[in-house]
Amino acid sequence: MEKIPATLPKGTRDFSPAVMAGRNFIFDTIKSVFRKYGFQQIETPSIENLRTLTGKYGDEGDKLIFKILNSGEYLNKVDDKAFAEKDLTEITPKISEKALRYDLTIPFARYVVQHRNDITFPFKRFQIQPVWRADRPQKGRYREFYQCDADVIGTDSLLCEAELAAIYDEALSKLGLEDYTIRLNNRKILGGLIEVAGMGERFMEVTIAIDKLDKIGADGVKKELLEKGFRESDIDTLMMAFTVTGSVFEKLEWLQGHLKSSEQGMKGVEEMITVFDYLKNFGQFEGEVTLDFTLARGLDYYTGTIYEVAVNDVKIGSIGGGGRYDNLTEVFGLKDVTGVGISFGADRIYDVLEEKGLLKTQIAVSTQVFICNFDKAAHNISLGLMARLRKEGVSVEMYPDVAKVKKNLQYANNNNIPFVIMIGDEELKQNKFTLKNMITGDQDLCSLEEVIAKTKS
Amino acid sequence: MEKIPATLPKGTRDFSPAVMAGRNFIFDTIKSVFRKYGFQQIETPSIENLRTLTGKYGDEGDKLIFKILNSGEYLNKVDDKAFAEKDLTEITPKISEKALRYDLTIPFARYVVQHRNDITFPFKRFQIQPVWRADRPQKGRYREFYQCDADVIGTDSLLCEAELAAIYDEALSKLGLEDYTIRLNNRKILGGLIEVAGMGERFMEVTIAIDKLDKIGADGVKKELLEKGFRESDIDTLMMAFTVTGSVFEKLEWLQGHLKSSEQGMKGVEEMITVFDYLKNFGQFEGEVTLDFTLARGLDYYTGTIYEVAVNDVKIGSIGGGGRYDNLTEVFGLKDVTGVGISFGADRIYDVLEEKGLLKTQIAVSTQVFICNFDKAAHNISLGLMARLRKEGVSVEMYPDVAKVKKNLQYANNNNIPFVIMIGDEELKQNKFTLKNMITGDQDLCSLEEVIAKTKS
Repeated sequence: MEKIPATLPKGTRDFSPAVMAGRNFIFDTIKSVFRKYGFQQIETPSIENLRTLTGKYGDEGDKLIFKILNSGEYLNKVDDKAFAEKDLTEITPKISEKALRYDLTIPFARYVVQHRNDITFPFKRFQIQPVWRADRPQKGRYREFYQCDADVIGTDSLLCEAELAAIYDEALSKLGLEDYTIRLNNRKILGGLIEVAGMGERFMEVTIAIDKLDKIGADGVKKELLEKGFRESDIDTLMMAFTVTGSVFEKLEWLQGHLKSSEQGMKGVEEMITVFDYLKNFGQFEGEVTLDFTLARGLDYYTGTIYEVAVNDVKIGSIGGGGRYDNLTEVFGLKDVTGVGISFGADRIYDVLEEKGLLKTQIAVSTQVFICNFDKAAHNISLGLMARLRKEGVSVEMYPDVAKVKKNLQYANNNNIPFVIMIGDEELKQNKFTLKNMITGDQDLCSLEEVIAKTKS
Repeated sequence: MEKIPATLPKGTRDFSPAVMAGRNFIFDTIKSVFRKYGFQQIETPSIENLRTLTGKYGDEGDKLIFKILNSGEYLNKVDDKAFAEKDLTEITPKISEKALRYDLTIPFARYVVQHRNDITFPFKRFQIQPVWRADRPQKGRYREFYQCDADVIGTDSLLCEAELAAIYDEALSKLGLEDYTIRLNNRKILGGLIEVAGMGERFMEVTIAIDKLDKIGADGVKKELLEKGFRESDIDTLMMAFTVTGSVFEKLEWLQGHLKSSEQGMKGVEEMITVFDYLKNFGQFEGEVTLDFTLARGLDYYTGTIYEVAVNDVKIGSIGGGGRYDNLTEVFGLKDVTGVGISFGADRIYDVLEEKGLLKTQIAVSTQVFICNFDKAAHNISLGLMARLRKEGVSVEMYPDVAKVKKNLQYANNNNIPFVIMIGDEELKQNKFTLKNMITGDQDLCSLEEVIAKTKS
């Protein structure tokens, strides 16, 4: 038999029980907050029709979609000319009609259109599933990773915007994080700032430059815009806004003066005032949620509020983001569906929690009680005890083979089992059990009832 | 913009919130039982190296593996001759190096070998993840479906066999099922029966015929074996065992006589006696777990105990199965690793529970309280109430836009929200809230504290 090496494709990972415990803690926490705010879970299949996905993520994105080879005689549909010329643009859609989803947004849009007659709008859905990208793997970037998305579609109420910010805040603090910032901006404010600086005709170019502020600094952005041929005075007008300090409402007040001549800008300011009024009304936001005029985000389908979340004392980039979009479903034939959504980056959140030591209490504990198996005479007693504890709802296991005490205890220790029961001659004679607390090291001779009472909690 | 139809590939499904509630109930129940018996969760990536999977599932299985097309200029590795001849056997492994997992067993074997230095043996793992097969879709058979597997590896203790049967029993009864049968057999008993009938040299052929007993009956099996050239008297000797009745231990006693001349047969009987002794000791098996000599199961890698589970009053086939295997990991270079595992068919279990009306209590309830939004004057009061209820841990939402009462109630109703709060003029005047119980129809004027007390449960 040929020996196959036990390896994984680049950019993919196994999750051991210890890591699973941390990941489950993160997913469960985020889910519970989504549910508390009235979001309902859906799942879509990993596989979508290729044409559902292509053309939605730009040329670069298209290249990163994992395509699935057709089954059977897959070359039969390729015409000879394309085949002879090795013309991949022709060949690929003929030999591959399905693909792995690239994100949760496009499958959700497809879902909404496909099931529109069964959905009650506004529809608040959450979805926690893996996505796949043929990206170059590097630290913190994987080819298979989870996205945790919540979206409200079918309403333009700004209450949704405020609640999504509140969800970020509640979830991150429930995860044990303290020093994080939820930054909000509005595409219309950004549009207004660019407009009053006289650069409105090249909105995307300017936005892309602003998006780099974090990385290359104000001087870098200015240099880039100068190189693109913008006038220095216009650039200075634009970038003045980025130096405005003060509270959220002070910044918004400044904007109301600065953006007077821009209709879209004033609309954006008005929207942000409403959102922050809601947040004030919720009464729980002191500094965690801020307004940042420099926040641009690369994706050009955002039309209103945009979000970006970062942990302040860990250098790892954003751990979440989102925004409001129009016409999410238009490409699937359903017009005028507006929505707003956010996403949590679960893998990065895991890395942050691990770095800050916040996963220590989430150790994988499957089993509460371990029954040592070192004395054949105790076998039947052990089996009865195990069955009884399970009836009480206690998770319990015994070592499947008769083995030395040391080996038994090693197993319990490696598996983080908090209670160990030992049954030897003395215990059999007295009809009792030695119960050892593996955390404190305490050891007691207990009756059955005492064992139940001590381990059932 | 080209309009793309909102459709899914054949054999794949979306899961709506209502279906997700049922599925989560099934997965959570199975997980909780796995954990109670000391199994720990792992996850492996959806994508494996193609050569990890090929050759493990037979020729038919290989054809059903979903292969992923390489990224970039994927035809470059194909040599001209193979290309000119459209030789798929040559071309496929050059243009596809990765594939979607076909089951959870082979990825688990790969996991064990890859992480063997970090694993404490015996290793009790469970894994609940989707698998993909390019099967012809039909009712109850999908191209993407979940498997729920639990395996113990690194010990040949028969305690594992008994505990896995107990897990089936506990999980199925926790799911609300009553009339099911967990059938056990042992490959060595099957081997012994075939051996003493003088048909031992063609074990696999005979097994495959026996496996069809359910479908084609004893006469059909006999006919098939006759056609294959077996002697009628041998066939009768073999099939005599299938007519033996009585309790499990009576059947085993009969076997001890019948299989005296077969060493493997007697070993199998001894193993089954031990397993059923364990089960008797657990004290919870009265008829649910039985011994069935006709149980063969197609997979030829089972070497000892085999399991098959069916619901008796629903015609849907087996909802679970498994068995003991040797050398699971040999193909990845780690010899002599024995193990035993079981699998739950979650999709079929869902269909059974739905048919029996056992999912009605699992309705998707994300939100406990819905605040109507029909009167702008109540807006700020509503926001404050919502924030307060959330602080109390109550899941609550309000309609995001001001809308008619009817539209508000329709939303609450469609989303199965049990409590609705209405705030109109009268309520504002009295500083109270009308709380409507959507299940009973009862409606009360309540203070804030009363609302909290009534909805917090």
